[in-house]
Amino acid sequence: MSQVVEHIRSERAAYLQQLTELLAIPSVSTDSARAADVRRAAEWVRRRLSSAGCTTVELHETARHPIVYGEWLGAPGAPTILVYGHYDVQPVDPVALWDNAPFEPVVRDGRIYARGASDNKGQFLPHIDAFEAHLRVGGGCPVNVKFLIEGEEEIGSPGLPSFVAANARRLACDAVVVSDTAMFAKGLPSICYGLRGLVYLEIDVRGTARDLHSGAFGGAVVNPANALVTLLASLKDARGRVTVPRFYDKVRRPSPAERRALAALPHSDARLRREIGAPALFGEAGYGTLERLWARPTLDINGIWGGFTGEGAKTVIPAEVHAKISMRLVPDQQPRVIARQLIAHLKKSAPKSVRLTVRELHGGDPWIAPTDHPALQAAGRALRRAFGRRPVLVREGGSIPIVADFERILRVPAVLMGLGLSDDNLHAPNEKMELDNFYGGIMASAYLMEELAAPGEQEPDRGRSARPRRAGSSAR
Amino acid sequence: MSQVVEHIRSERAAYLQQLTELLAIPSVSTDSARAADVRRAAEWVRRRLSSAGCTTVELHETARHPIVYGEWLGAPGAPTILVYGHYDVQPVDPVALWDNAPFEPVVRDGRIYARGASDNKGQFLPHIDAFEAHLRVGGGCPVNVKFLIEGEEEIGSPGLPSFVAANARRLACDAVVVSDTAMFAKGLPSICYGLRGLVYLEIDVRGTARDLHSGAFGGAVVNPANALVTLLASLKDARGRVTVPRFYDKVRRPSPAERRALAALPHSDARLRREIGAPALFGEAGYGTLERLWARPTLDINGIWGGFTGEGAKTVIPAEVHAKISMRLVPDQQPRVIARQLIAHLKKSAPKSVRLTVRELHGGDPWIAPTDHPALQAAGRALRRAFGRRPVLVREGGSIPIVADFERILRVPAVLMGLGLSDDNLHAPNEKMELDNFYGGIMASAYLMEELAAPGEQEPDRGRSARPRRAGSSAR
Repeated sequence: MSQVVEHIRSERAAYLQQLTELLAIPSVSTDSARAADVRRAAEWVRRRLSSAGCTTVELHETARHPIVYGEWLGAPGAPTILVYGHYDVQPVDPVALWDNAPFEPVVRDGRIYARGASDNKGQFLPHIDAFEAHLRVGGGCPVNVKFLIEGEEEIGSPGLPSFVAANARRLACDAVVVSDTAMFAKGLPSICYGLRGLVYLEIDVRGTARDLHSGAFGGAVVNPANALVTLLASLKDARGRVTVPRFYDKVRRPSPAERRALAALPHSDARLRREIGAPALFGEAGYGTLERLWARPTLDINGIWGGFTGEGAKTVIPAEVHAKISMRLVPDQQPRVIARQLIAHLKKSAPKSVRLTVRELHGGDPWIAPTDHPALQAAGRALRRAFGRRPVLVREGGSIPIVADFERILRVPAVLMGLGLSDDNLHAPNEKMELDNFYGGIMASAYLMEELAAPGEQEPDRGRSARPRRAGSSAR
Repeated sequence: MSQVVEHIRSERAAYLQQLTELLAIPSVSTDSARAADVRRAAEWVRRRLSSAGCTTVELHETARHPIVYGEWLGAPGAPTILVYGHYDVQPVDPVALWDNAPFEPVVRDGRIYARGASDNKGQFLPHIDAFEAHLRVGGGCPVNVKFLIEGEEEIGSPGLPSFVAANARRLACDAVVVSDTAMFAKGLPSICYGLRGLVYLEIDVRGTARDLHSGAFGGAVVNPANALVTLLASLKDARGRVTVPRFYDKVRRPSPAERRALAALPHSDARLRREIGAPALFGEAGYGTLERLWARPTLDINGIWGGFTGEGAKTVIPAEVHAKISMRLVPDQQPRVIARQLIAHLKKSAPKSVRLTVRELHGGDPWIAPTDHPALQAAGRALRRAFGRRPVLVREGGSIPIVADFERILRVPAVLMGLGLSDDNLHAPNEKMELDNFYGGIMASAYLMEELAAPGEQEPDRGRSARPRRAGSSAR
């Protein structure tokens, strides 16, 4: 293993060069004008998997952008991991707010700035680099490896679940490894064991056949905008709780030990408040901020529109108004059940004098991993060895629906070993990746392959102490 | 007077020709590209006032479009009326929904279709025509007449109040006559004795410095959209009452007699519901529809917007959201006081975790006329003589701020003798004017001039019976 470590250290310039090459390809999946660039990125990944040593590499077509698949099964009897990542990126608007051209990567102050640096090119490449290092100087990879790198993550991975289901046997593995989340803080390696689920709805409220003059008709008809705000306001109470009947029925409460662990993380409400520029934080009474974000469901209005929205005054009663709302769900809430409950509640509450329609736009299961699973423990030891610090166990408030899909279809745990940081400017101008995290991620991936093959054998003492403490430890 | 009546009958073709000419000028006051057309309309009105017989005719410049003023003071000792109207018109969008080009007037089925037909060209010209008829064949006009025809009504009459105040002595009169409202029904002449006032506000709610990811932050911060809907929902209760403290303190309750009179008008809730295509009517409990529209204040959301409003789903907590709301006021509510009360209520109710700003965009006093004033009674007799039917007394739910301004500055009553109909499509495609109302309006104006000069002298019996019944009459 020491040769592998040494090799990875000596190859840094080459790894950075490869990352820079891939970042220079504007693989914006939502932009049909960029389709050729997206394919160019897929081809780049295919070549990279080949050059790294995959014995089989394939491009699988979907309705829009291909899935790149590569495998190396040269360790019979050893475990198999499936590394998931995506080579597509978000759009770059507003491009004027970037300090450098988004697809002309710039290294500055130990970071590489470019669209896709952290999300997700700089996070999946380390696994390919680590795999290659094992092959080159380690006498082969200690585990069998399958890579599944898609090009539609930023447009909701429409083609992926059916691909996984159709190829479940081909994709069979002992663990799915994903680096697409963030470390809790710079220098503090983290394993994410929970994600919130999602229900996303669009609500339309229609009153009259056309807009009405608010002088001529105000007071005689329901204004759909007034009806909508009343409906939406009724969904939460003043203490921040969702009021939809039975909404909290299936919410799994964190154990006292997990709550203590969350409370021990180096989180500061004041710092968060300053970072986002809020006058004050606010959330469901009785829970701390991290618990609200990670272990409690919530409901947010994501958009609302109707009536006159231009400059000045127009005295109109709008014929129709609209809102988009979403709920973040936690185990064991089920998106379909929650959506049904909410829709029933809205229909019951809406006044007879308006027409209400509700459409479900999106849904995704919440996900939580057993923190004592050997794969998570192996990841903990690997991160400790790579970053020199005991990793913390975290959850995230967002949703990565494909993680729950992998677990459901392949029936194996997912290991979320995030290499990003919360200030990486994902989906925003000046996206960046810390080079410490990029290089450290290659090392962590190399250690993970070793730890999964022979858990804790290499450095038993360090291995044990680096094990992520389970919920119940008071030290986290 | 019989010659005048005969002359008006014989000149119909000429009156229609003049109306058609004026309607062909696209005097859209809000469109700066139409400024020359607006001025062309002003010049047209000036020439018409001259040709009709005004001895002084002037164009008064304002910041945008001129006020046309004309006077004839050839009846010393007789009363003086000030006729108010406006030669500017609304924009024509959406022009594709018009059956004819908006500025190429078409006569069809006894109606003339064009932008401005009813609002207001077809309603102020009758007074000029009637004045002319008196001069030509009646041996002079029985009253002194001043015409004030502005070109900025559709943009809020910004220049008018100061002009009226600065020229109060010049504009001195015994009554202001305005035809800019609607008859209660076709063939049913109406005098409007009340208008609602207005307070129009824009509300901005700001949370964080930038939009946030609703997964990463949902549950930890106040969502400004949720805060806004809660604030707006709190302004009205389920029974349709405004909940702002002291909002109803100054509301003048209609007398039982006035309520009976309203109830006796030929109004049908079912017909109204069908006309506007509403599933049901709704309003403040305890009041009939007309009373809600005319004699009760209300609060409506006119526009609301914020967050993601495009196709599909975006999981964002908007940094800021906005709403436009307005209240229609009734005597003796004061716009400034009501605005202050509402703003205080909003500021008190807003959570500390958002920043709230409220701007007042518009205000106007409610107005109510004493129905027993001799000028209103004269108008009642005139309408009865012109339309052969006893007029009804009505109010309107809308606001014409300049009416209250005239009364306040000139200290004389306003007589609102509407010649429009509620289906004239004001501010909408296919605006039209009933030719019966146009010709009848010329006759009514001619009678009004006579009635004001010598109340009830001409035809005492008919005059008395045509008098609009005062509130208290059970027959209305």
